[in-house]
Amino acid sequence: PSRRWLERMRRTFEEPTSSLAAQILASVSVVFVIVSMVVLCASTLPDWRNAAADNRSLDDRSRYSAGPGREPSGIIEAICIGWFTAECIVRFIVSKNKCEFVKRPLNIIDLLAITPYYISVLMTVFTGENSQLQRAGVTLRVLRMMRIFWVIKLARHFIGLQTLGLTLKRCYREMVMLLVFICVAMAIFSALSQLLEHGLDLETSNKDFTSIPAACWWVIISMTTVGYGDMYPITVPGRILGGVCVVSGIVLLALPITFIYHSFVQCYHELKFRSARYSRSLSAEFLN
Amino acid sequence: PSRRWLERMRRTFEEPTSSLAAQILASVSVVFVIVSMVVLCASTLPDWRNAAADNRSLDDRSRYSAGPGREPSGIIEAICIGWFTAECIVRFIVSKNKCEFVKRPLNIIDLLAITPYYISVLMTVFTGENSQLQRAGVTLRVLRMMRIFWVIKLARHFIGLQTLGLTLKRCYREMVMLLVFICVAMAIFSALSQLLEHGLDLETSNKDFTSIPAACWWVIISMTTVGYGDMYPITVPGRILGGVCVVSGIVLLALPITFIYHSFVQCYHELKFRSARYSRSLSAEFLN
Amino acid sequence: PSRRWLERMRRTFEEPTSSLAAQILASVSVVFVIVSMVVLCASTLPDWRNAAADNRSLDDRSRYSAGPGREPSGIIEAICIGWFTAECIVRFIVSKNKCEFVKRPLNIIDLLAITPYYISVLMTVFTGENSQLQRAGVTLRVLRMMRIFWVIKLARHFIGLQTLGLTLKRCYREMVMLLVFICVAMAIFSALSQLLEHGLDLETSNKDFTSIPAACWWVIISMTTVGYGDMYPITVPGRILGGVCVVSGIVLLALPITFIYHSFVQCYHELKFRSARYSRSLSAEFLN
Amino acid sequence: PSRRWLERMRRTFEEPTSSLAAQILASVSVVFVIVSMVVLCASTLPDWRNAAADNRSLDDRSRYSAGPGREPSGIIEAICIGWFTAECIVRFIVSKNKCEFVKRPLNIIDLLAITPYYISVLMTVFTGENSQLQRAGVTLRVLRMMRIFWVIKLARHFIGLQTLGLTLKRCYREMVMLLVFICVAMAIFSALSQLLEHGLDLETSNKDFTSIPAACWWVIISMTTVGYGDMYPITVPGRILGGVCVVSGIVLLALPITFIYHSFVQCYHELKFRSARYSRSLSAEFLN
Repeated sequence: PSRRWLERMRRTFEEPTSSLAAQILASVSVVFVIVSMVVLCASTLPDWRNAAADNRSLDDRSRYSAGPGREPSGIIEAICIGWFTAECIVRFIVSKNKCEFVKRPLNIIDLLAITPYYISVLMTVFTGENSQLQRAGVTLRVLRMMRIFWVIKLARHFIGLQTLGLTLKRCYREMVMLLVFICVAMAIFSALSQLLEHGLDLETSNKDFTSIPAACWWVIISMTTVGYGDMYPITVPGRILGGVCVVSGIVLLALPITFIYHSFVQCYHELKFRSARYSRSLSAEFLN
Repeated sequence: PSRRWLERMRRTFEEPTSSLAAQILASVSVVFVIVSMVVLCASTLPDWRNAAADNRSLDDRSRYSAGPGREPSGIIEAICIGWFTAECIVRFIVSKNKCEFVKRPLNIIDLLAITPYYISVLMTVFTGENSQLQRAGVTLRVLRMMRIFWVIKLARHFIGLQTLGLTLKRCYREMVMLLVFICVAMAIFSALSQLLEHGLDLETSNKDFTSIPAACWWVIISMTTVGYGDMYPITVPGRILGGVCVVSGIVLLALPITFIYHSFVQCYHELKFRSARYSRSLSAEFLN
Repeated sequence: PSRRWLERMRRTFEEPTSSLAAQILASVSVVFVIVSMVVLCASTLPDWRNAAADNRSLDDRSRYSAGPGREPSGIIEAICIGWFTAECIVRFIVSKNKCEFVKRPLNIIDLLAITPYYISVLMTVFTGENSQLQRAGVTLRVLRMMRIFWVIKLARHFIGLQTLGLTLKRCYREMVMLLVFICVAMAIFSALSQLLEHGLDLETSNKDFTSIPAACWWVIISMTTVGYGDMYPITVPGRILGGVCVVSGIVLLALPITFIYHSFVQCYHELKFRSARYSRSLSAEFLN
Repeated sequence: PSRRWLERMRRTFEEPTSSLAAQILASVSVVFVIVSMVVLCASTLPDWRNAAADNRSLDDRSRYSAGPGREPSGIIEAICIGWFTAECIVRFIVSKNKCEFVKRPLNIIDLLAITPYYISVLMTVFTGENSQLQRAGVTLRVLRMMRIFWVIKLARHFIGLQTLGLTLKRCYREMVMLLVFICVAMAIFSALSQLLEHGLDLETSNKDFTSIPAACWWVIISMTTVGYGDMYPITVPGRILGGVCVVSGIVLLALPITFIYHSFVQCYHELKFRSARYSRSLSAEFLN
């Protein structure tokens, strides 16, 4: 009976559509992810930071202001991380095969998303509140921002994100092709544009194109038809090259993307079919 | 005979291709929609508003300047709303099943498009001309702008808009997928860009990327390859992230849109086939 | 025999692949079109205009400077127009059915492209050189620019342009659909953006969005993902609307274009097949 | 036996998947190409150039500073070019048919990519270090930048680039079609925009649209939806034309690109199939 209970628990955690409890659990997880994302976004707003700073200076006398858990945003984060940790641990305990569990990509992401929080808490505790502002500020901000990868936890609950993941996994050849196309085009066009805009006449040259890496930024922004307008060619040969670059970019980018798209459609139908068959087998099980 | 007359009336109003009278009625409706749209657009032009203000100050002595019906644009609007109201009422009277009629999306839109006008007239009457300029100005402007949704009434007369509506209804899953993709990409890229452009070095940071919500605007404008140029990364890691963000955006947006497109093609052929069969059955009826 | 000669002439002019003479004729026409286009472009360059003005002031004493035929560009234009007129007249004379000839779209374009030149020459002769600079300048510039439509004469010689023309003719329904989509989206988004950016708070409003027609420009430039950056929303609700507008724009524009594309592929294969069968029948004729 | 050894050598150089030695050789070539690209990019960075200039002024006393081989970047380039030259020569020696070898596109590219380096070395030797800075600077910079075409050597090792090359070769008709579409649209829209923005009213005209060639830049940047924002129409008719231009651009560019895409998919499958069959035949050979 304990084994059956474990099996039911496992199913509740791993298969969001298997029962009502599983659906509630899944919904709570999604809500926690969204709440933590909103808090992370809001905590970078100037108004919010000023309010937090005021808060902190008021608390400065008290000896307990040692962690990120004192501000409202910190408390919400602590609750979220608590939930994620608990979910992760329970999922590990009830899993059939521990070794296989650790190797799954989604579980690795979970671990990578949770760990930075504990590291940052430890760092704050050891370095102290005041000194960390000067010394470990950048590291803490980087660790804190790692929290954004909690959003990938949503992949458990959205078939679209799973399809995307499967597509990326299967289309690594086409991804490499896309990357090679972009790199080759960037190398050629950035070198030529730097030559035409800057190299041909050093006196009246365009200051934006002084080096090839700078021209690379222009090339990628032009090939993808973004065109911020912070850099653009001003000489006639540079403009002709610019037109060629933009048109080639449209053609070059469209070619490998269509492969990726076909793979995506196939993955989507596979996943949908598998999930439909799965829920049919489940309902058949319930009926018998 | 009265029943037959009602049936003919219903057909005249609901099926624009059934008879000459129905076609004239449909054309008049389309013309009224277009005229009201043009008046709404023109009424926001500075020249027009100044002329209206002059007009109003001349009329200020007269006691009758109580409604929006005094300026030329107001008169046209009153005629349009009168026509739409009359059309709506007649359509309701001649409908077979009142309950089903109320539930139809296009009729709900009609109601939602007409109501704000009457509310704004009532507000003007009760609050008076002068005081509303200070107190209820914003509300009135919002209600007035609701008039733009009259344009959806065109869906009755254009198969393209009906196809679009049917596609959106059927593709709600793909729409959600598109939304989830955009939100997840926005969360990840905005947090990373804020970190790279602002968080790594607070002294020499890019002022445009001070908060994640501000970076979100940059991400959506870059992923869709719009690129206004009001914000752009200036550090080398930020620019590399920008390139990745733009290319992922092109791939991510293209994937769910192709699903929507396939559904659109199917809906279009269905609606065309249905309308062709319908008009054939009509002509068969006329022949017998 | 005269009839046979006429038939051969007709074939030489109308079927560019039928004989060597026809090919030479076609090539000469293409060269003349390209030359006249280059001259038209070059004549608007500041350097060229200054040179022409200097030239003209030197000639000012002579009484013969009455037409546009005196400058180098004018002479080239006169030669081109002479060739086009001659070609048009010969083609009319050798045509089998005069009535049908006049109705063909390409011949109408020829006529519309040639006529403005003669009108502008007549105007210059009647109004005189000096006075026209003040009075009839705009009309002359418009007539002169009509010359650009000579470029459509290339459609006779490029299967791609013919395919495009045939596609546009067959896809007028889809074109109307595209237009309706763009207009409806423009109406809704421009009105809402004007409300959110300007209407909600008149004091701190965005000066770019004062009227709906101004906002229309922003909507079309955003929906097509051009994004010049001359106008962009600055308030939070305006930016959210901007994101929705851009994504809807990508979806809305992609939908009807795919219909047009399918029609284009079909037209291309039809035209290629027809031209292949035609040249096969020609070679069979030569063999017998 | 010598013939068999030659055959093995030939296979090692020409077929990167035939043996371990061939794979190592291919990898070394790819690494050399990438290293030379990185050095070329880095050598245009201001910091790097200043360092090189300091270096050079220190060496100025020594008589040996006659070539580009003295700075670190020069030494790396010399090694790369040595490798490429050696590879090219060995490949030529072991080739079966010398005449056919010379005609292959990839070998011609190799030759064109290597030659400029030797010319630039010769120029530096003959003109001397100091005088070349003034006289032959531009030529040397152009020759130096030719080095970027070494990147095309990667096509030997990436199936994606081979597919691209084969697609471009097969789709020359569609490429011409794309070019004709762009040119015709550019001619018409640039002339009309110049007329509407500049020609209609010379006093209040938009200074960006003074000539047709200038307007051409705006047209290509708008049609491809890049939209840098350095030029944009400001009059109402110019903006309406701008909207038409952008929408036509999207339609016009999409049409021929789909042909190219279909050809690309076909070429990709052909090349993949050929390479799969080839390696199968190889392994069969090894087994027997």
